[in-house]
Amino acid sequence: MKSFIDCIPCFIDQTLGSVRSITDDTVLHEKILKKVLRVVSDLDMGDSPPAMGQKIHRIIREMTGNADPYQSNKERYNRFAESLMPMLKKKIDGRGDAFENGLRMAIAGNIIDFGKNHALTEDDVLKVINQCFSVLIDMDAVASLKEEVLCAKTILYLGDNAGEIVFDRFFIEQLPVEKITYVVRGRPIINDVTKVDAEEVNMNQLVRVADNGSDAPGTILSDCSPGFVERFHQADLIISKGQGNYETLSGMDNNIYFLLQAKCPVIARDIGCEIGAYIVRKNAISRIIEGNPKQGAANTK
Amino acid sequence: MKSFIDCIPCFIDQTLGSVRSITDDTVLHEKILKKVLRVVSDLDMGDSPPAMGQKIHRIIREMTGNADPYQSNKERYNRFAESLMPMLKKKIDGRGDAFENGLRMAIAGNIIDFGKNHALTEDDVLKVINQCFSVLIDMDAVASLKEEVLCAKTILYLGDNAGEIVFDRFFIEQLPVEKITYVVRGRPIINDVTKVDAEEVNMNQLVRVADNGSDAPGTILSDCSPGFVERFHQADLIISKGQGNYETLSGMDNNIYFLLQAKCPVIARDIGCEIGAYIVRKNAISRIIEGNPKQGAANTK
Repeated sequence: MKSFIDCIPCFIDQTLGSVRSITDDTVLHEKILKKVLRVVSDLDMGDSPPAMGQKIHRIIREMTGNADPYQSNKERYNRFAESLMPMLKKKIDGRGDAFENGLRMAIAGNIIDFGKNHALTEDDVLKVINQCFSVLIDMDAVASLKEEVLCAKTILYLGDNAGEIVFDRFFIEQLPVEKITYVVRGRPIINDVTKVDAEEVNMNQLVRVADNGSDAPGTILSDCSPGFVERFHQADLIISKGQGNYETLSGMDNNIYFLLQAKCPVIARDIGCEIGAYIVRKNAISRIIEGNPKQGAANTK
Repeated sequence: MKSFIDCIPCFIDQTLGSVRSITDDTVLHEKILKKVLRVVSDLDMGDSPPAMGQKIHRIIREMTGNADPYQSNKERYNRFAESLMPMLKKKIDGRGDAFENGLRMAIAGNIIDFGKNHALTEDDVLKVINQCFSVLIDMDAVASLKEEVLCAKTILYLGDNAGEIVFDRFFIEQLPVEKITYVVRGRPIINDVTKVDAEEVNMNQLVRVADNGSDAPGTILSDCSPGFVERFHQADLIISKGQGNYETLSGMDNNIYFLLQAKCPVIARDIGCEIGAYIVRKNAISRIIEGNPKQGAANTK
């Protein structure tokens, strides 16, 4: 997905929110914001928003001298998400379909996104999580994903954010774990998951964990390691979490299911949904909407 | 008042809102926005927000090739404001104090500000105007201004926006008109009043009308004509309407009463009020808050 002009004010807001959450040094806030203004003024709108996010957060890390500014935030939200699990497990105990319950929790967890919302609180998260079992979702897409999970031999699960990974883990526990590789970012970027988070929540004891070699808040294949790119193209099925992965992969021909909350107007318009909607969308559907049904159909299983 | 870092995202939002209201050419939207990003990245934060607004709207006028992009908007809101007057006059007929009623309407009219809010509608304006007689205002400041209006020999009334000028005219009708000069901007800038608007609403038949020689959305004295600057310093009393005039004059030693609605968080924080508050504030008060009571007191009458 390319960037839209509405992404530009959002990049600026995100920068200010981010630097304020990292340091109280107002002189540094101004310096970083002005540097980002110059970089955004050279933005190629054909690039995806995470490509710009990558540039912005490299500037922030470099100028604050902090290689992982969201480290404590990530630890906090991993712990917070884990603290919610007993209550959530009790809530669904024996009720409904385990696959659907897990999938709903995994999408709900996608609210823990400090790239889009620096003012997010634990209360905001709790509110979203509590509603997740009654939110409208595309049940045909859920059924289709469930079937593809059974048929696929290799599944890549592209993680998104810390905290959210705890809900991913619960969902993955309902899946054939031997087929699954959980993918994290190659280096710290905002509150996105890295190997540290995967270990912290014991994801590595459940499934294989691989990093993609990149510090983009999405999956920019040209920026990923050759090993990851090979794995990506060989996977029978890719489960892609969150906006950043959607923004960078929605134009691909691979067999991808996107699970996310549509948290900004640009994404909501691209998908054709309301802000806040829970999305379960197979890549092919995007391509059909784009008016190229044959190509979409030929590349999905 | 200097610019604050929060002004930067606001400048970007304002630019996008403005160019979208002027042209549907999305390529031009991007070009203008990127040019503004570069200019804002060089912003001297010691300059007032209207100094930046002046630069931004010069870029917009130059790049759209439209010397007065808000012309039809200004005409529309002048007519709309005039259409409300019979209803408002009926509402206050024989009730309350004429000075206070006029002042409240003049402040209410300050909502018609397309610099701050490009999505403003006639319904928004009507809602604010309808509430203006019950909104909390500083009655001590109102009484003090009323007294100063009687004592002053020369009064400059610094206008702000089109549409709003109709409510200014009603307020001025309650004042000793022979003392008053109504000041407009020297050239078109956003929906700020110019001589065209003053003539359109017959302000020039009520009082002297002078322009300040500048195209800033405020009163930057160093950018104004020598004639206006002389008049400014000789005036016994200055009634200053709106945020732009407040932002550019709040540090001055002259005898100024600011009448405005606090429409953004930066102004509200500077004044120490809620967003949306009706402000009647004598300059000296600002100076006392700034911790320099002697200087403030020495320069006010």
